[in-house]
Amino acid sequence: MARGLVLLFTGDGKGKTTAALGTALRAWGHGMRVLFLQFVKGERVMTGERLAASRLGEGFTLETLGAGFIFGWEEEEKHREAARRAWERAKEAVNSGKYDLVVLDEFTYVLRYGFVTIAEVEGMIRSRPAGVHLIFTGRGAPKELVDLADTVTEMREVKHHYHQGISAQKGIEY
Amino acid sequence: MARGLVLLFTGDGKGKTTAALGTALRAWGHGMRVLFLQFVKGERVMTGERLAASRLGEGFTLETLGAGFIFGWEEEEKHREAARRAWERAKEAVNSGKYDLVVLDEFTYVLRYGFVTIAEVEGMIRSRPAGVHLIFTGRGAPKELVDLADTVTEMREVKHHYHQGISAQKGIEY
Repeated sequence: MARGLVLLFTGDGKGKTTAALGTALRAWGHGMRVLFLQFVKGERVMTGERLAASRLGEGFTLETLGAGFIFGWEEEEKHREAARRAWERAKEAVNSGKYDLVVLDEFTYVLRYGFVTIAEVEGMIRSRPAGVHLIFTGRGAPKELVDLADTVTEMREVKHHYHQGISAQKGIEY
Repeated sequence: MARGLVLLFTGDGKGKTTAALGTALRAWGHGMRVLFLQFVKGERVMTGERLAASRLGEGFTLETLGAGFIFGWEEEEKHREAARRAWERAKEAVNSGKYDLVVLDEFTYVLRYGFVTIAEVEGMIRSRPAGVHLIFTGRGAPKELVDLADTVTEMREVKHHYHQGISAQKGIEY
């Protein structure tokens, strides 16, 4: 069995979730069983990735476990609970033997807010079945997560069309 | 109709082709018609993206148009011909009205070798149907291509498992 890798896509540029999605598609192409867990995105927006996942069918599962983006501290408890549920789901899935690749999308946010600790993440990584690949995404990954990962890419924003007043485009950004 | 965007994923890190693949999947999820053109990769390796494309079926087309990676100048003519054929195919596809998103994967290599000029690229971008999104990928994009793009992300390698002696993993990197 291949050694499972830990990949991390971080930085402020476009393409973190998207690169995770591309890796997931590639793995699915090879017949691997993929679970894509969205830690921040909630179910309100029918994104391209959700639509795609439903069309891909068996072998590609996407779950939106977040409570939407965090706007104010007044909602912290709601987000903490969603993050903890998502984390328990992630650990259970990683250890279940049902998946070859588990993506923890926008995971760095739950670390930043202290909803999950780096010690918990380290425990999950080290105790997982040997063949399971993991991908973490999100801005501002802490050094400890960089240290735990085998491969780390920083997506650096060189230029963004937002700054030209062009809004998010369906099919490209969501 | 949405204004077509020009996205560029460049830099030396992992995730350029992969982010293009993820964007393509997202677009396909929304029912957009996607063409993914591989300028360097040839048909010898059955990659995860090729397997996935064949399973996705209608609306997602992947073509491997390259002659494989360039190792020596003695093969330059073969690569030049492959690159020119790929370029003609790209222009034809972009203008055909058959695709909402066209990916020119690893395109910077054909610019670097002078097989296609930046003036040709500029002409294609400016004369394309208004709604067509384009994605270019590849290391070392020239400044002129950065200038032509709406959104540019540099994938910066922070850490890579190659350096730990772990070889490329099926389903993750190809």
